[in-house]
Amino acid sequence: MPTSENGSPPPVYREIAEELREQIRSGRYADGDRLPGENVIMERHGVARATARQALSVLINEGLAVAVRGSGVYVRLFRPIRRHGARRLSRELWGNGRAIWQTDTDGEDRGYDVDRLRVEEGTARDHVARVLGLTEGEGVLLRSRRYLVDGRPVQTALSHLPLALVGDEPRFRDGDTGPGGIYARLAERGLAPARFTEEIRGRMPTPEETEALGLTPGTPVLEVARTALTADHRPVEFNEITMDGSAYVLQYDFEA
Amino acid sequence: MPTSENGSPPPVYREIAEELREQIRSGRYADGDRLPGENVIMERHGVARATARQALSVLINEGLAVAVRGSGVYVRLFRPIRRHGARRLSRELWGNGRAIWQTDTDGEDRGYDVDRLRVEEGTARDHVARVLGLTEGEGVLLRSRRYLVDGRPVQTALSHLPLALVGDEPRFRDGDTGPGGIYARLAERGLAPARFTEEIRGRMPTPEETEALGLTPGTPVLEVARTALTADHRPVEFNEITMDGSAYVLQYDFEA
Repeated sequence: MPTSENGSPPPVYREIAEELREQIRSGRYADGDRLPGENVIMERHGVARATARQALSVLINEGLAVAVRGSGVYVRLFRPIRRHGARRLSRELWGNGRAIWQTDTDGEDRGYDVDRLRVEEGTARDHVARVLGLTEGEGVLLRSRRYLVDGRPVQTALSHLPLALVGDEPRFRDGDTGPGGIYARLAERGLAPARFTEEIRGRMPTPEETEALGLTPGTPVLEVARTALTADHRPVEFNEITMDGSAYVLQYDFEA
Repeated sequence: MPTSENGSPPPVYREIAEELREQIRSGRYADGDRLPGENVIMERHGVARATARQALSVLINEGLAVAVRGSGVYVRLFRPIRRHGARRLSRELWGNGRAIWQTDTDGEDRGYDVDRLRVEEGTARDHVARVLGLTEGEGVLLRSRRYLVDGRPVQTALSHLPLALVGDEPRFRDGDTGPGGIYARLAERGLAPARFTEEIRGRMPTPEETEALGLTPGTPVLEVARTALTADHRPVEFNEITMDGSAYVLQYDFEA
């Protein structure tokens, strides 16, 4: 993030963006309001169209505004969801520092909805087989879901559970997996997850992901590949999570 | 990540992408080779241009290929760098599971180069002041660097250290901060970092970031805002790290 702290003055488009950002924060422009267009910015600030466009794109990139094709740029005050990778060591428990990005303290406070739930049996291939330590073609239970916050789709998840581990237990196949979810059900079978590995990538979405998450053009996704392991290092679940990049801040706290 | 595990056949463009992916993996197309163009794919597979384009964009999104404007799509076998957020709990120590994405085990093995190093004094504003617990306008030492791997710029970092903590110690201002780097220097002053908080976002780059990281169009960045805290929760450093999204896999291991 370039800053103006290093002594050199910020470029003009950043100054304009900062002014608009302040007006959003102060409430002069509220959620859903149309921001000044390129022409208005050009006139007000005496700048070229490219500069006006850059200023607006700063706000779009920051997730403060969204461009609606053929109409304009609108304030979108969707606060990103803070997702804690390691709750156990989380900020609340430490009572320490301050967050960088303004977010909801926790996405769960906003009431997740789940739709497009699909549960089916399939076979493990390629990286899924490798990660779960299965033979190519071995059976897996696939739980596919989409999550919404404030009615906005923000995340899809495709969880893979080895069929050999879940057996015929119906809870794994239900929409409602019961108290504590699938991890509690695994624990009941002596397969409690003790450790997690998360691998994160940032990339542009596939067309299917753009549809499923209702992404505006130019919004990247965060892909989190999450493996749950028992205390004796046995992988019991692999979850492919795809998030709207503009909707999330991932937080990890750890010791030096 | 859509898969074909769920029983329904994958769309044609995915099949074509899979075939090309296999040919890259098998070495039929080597690093720097030009992949079949849209016309060739259309003819070979009897598909529409949009389908051929989708197939190629899958490989580009995966970081296996790169589009060169007006020329074609080329294999780019730059293996992403695996960055471990919490080395202490890392996979090697656990001796557990397998990685999802093929990466170098550690970017450090490839020999980072640092260029564009700049050290200067500035003032803490806005979120930096808030995170470091400083008054607006208090002095900070700014260490700005760009990192290269295999000659390719992959990361920029802007580290902020409260001037009140670093004093006149010249090592903090040197290109070479000495054995153990700035954390060892902080430790010598009784300010050893004991905990870290990392906040991650995925977003499109600013024009400056596109230039600094030599990003191809459509490549997002991963932004990691990292705070170092002492055992008694005092923030001693704040680092704004911006990574080429196609060059990194971030890994975090933690206990349940």
